[in-house]
Amino acid sequence: MQAGKPILYSYFRSSCSWRVRIALALKSIDYEMVTVNLIKDGGQQFSEEFQALNPMKQVPALKIDGITIGQSLAIIEYLEETRPTPRLLPQDPKKRAHVRMISDLIASGIQPLQNLSVLKQVGQEKQLSWAQQAISSGFNALERILQSTAGKYCVGDEVSMADLCLVPQVANADRYKVDLTPYPTISRISKSLLTLEAFQVSHPCRQPDTPPELRA
Amino acid sequence: MQAGKPILYSYFRSSCSWRVRIALALKSIDYEMVTVNLIKDGGQQFSEEFQALNPMKQVPALKIDGITIGQSLAIIEYLEETRPTPRLLPQDPKKRAHVRMISDLIASGIQPLQNLSVLKQVGQEKQLSWAQQAISSGFNALERILQSTAGKYCVGDEVSMADLCLVPQVANADRYKVDLTPYPTISRISKSLLTLEAFQVSHPCRQPDTPPELRA
Repeated sequence: MQAGKPILYSYFRSSCSWRVRIALALKSIDYEMVTVNLIKDGGQQFSEEFQALNPMKQVPALKIDGITIGQSLAIIEYLEETRPTPRLLPQDPKKRAHVRMISDLIASGIQPLQNLSVLKQVGQEKQLSWAQQAISSGFNALERILQSTAGKYCVGDEVSMADLCLVPQVANADRYKVDLTPYPTISRISKSLLTLEAFQVSHPCRQPDTPPELRA
Repeated sequence: MQAGKPILYSYFRSSCSWRVRIALALKSIDYEMVTVNLIKDGGQQFSEEFQALNPMKQVPALKIDGITIGQSLAIIEYLEETRPTPRLLPQDPKKRAHVRMISDLIASGIQPLQNLSVLKQVGQEKQLSWAQQAISSGFNALERILQSTAGKYCVGDEVSMADLCLVPQVANADRYKVDLTPYPTISRISKSLLTLEAFQVSHPCRQPDTPPELRA
């Protein structure tokens, strides 16, 4: 069923796509990328072709080993189970629970409330304050949790799935002008992770679909 | 570190709490319940005492084996790793990916958009249409996915984590008067699951904090 290289459906600015790009980079998985522009043509994710692939009309989606998986954390867990090196979940079940709790806090508790489709519904004038409120509220909790779980990274000193969620969420916080001063642990860990190659090559400013003015 | 029985912090109507109550019931795990009333006293989840336990100010949270875990799916994954029988994730990694994709679709793609705190922000007059839109949009995708993954239940014929997410979400759909006619697969699976004892004993209408008028 291994039908050639995995194909990642990605949008440069999608924080959920970035999570998966980091996982693929860390695990040195060779893949092809198909870019899906969430803005152009009213949103390419709404095409019949893409909906057949991912009925949620969202990126990322990964075609791999003969199946197509949507939802970034489901993709990362699958990669972890089938390509376990280097691991993105610690061996100890309690630490794994911390990694998943932090990942879910971001993936269910913050990101969905400030994604593009929700902000559209909220309306132009309230968008910024809505996004800031969602992120600050989540970061207040996250900062407190990290104070007991973090070492060099979110959980101890090994890069984990939680870190793959953290960095893209901090980038969204920057984008929505959230003051990060109250979150020294979040800021420290995110900065430290951004020095790693896997976080750099997967960065929104270095993707094939990054517009020239946003490249770095 | 096994410090007595696990303690579940739960609210009868919280769909995320219900997910965990089903898991505990299926796995026959003996536990104590502390109820957290999300409405009374302005919301008991905002107390300093509860925030120290779960900085996200949300239920469920589970104290178990000397740690406290927030986020329902992180809790269920931990239970699965430490109390594996009966299993809530299939053995085959591809089927596990389907289970996690469906679980995340509900836990990140639907539930957060229609939970109490978001609906409060949306405001009284728009609440119902906002919740209906979030649920219908997610169910459109879910119905399509289930047509290829489902057997008797969401993924094949074994009860899985995806089913633990499905039934409480269908209950929320009922509560917000979403027409389920377009979702025959979702409806069939949910009805079938509700005949199982673990889904019945954990039901919002049978909890210690269920108000008398909602008991059944």
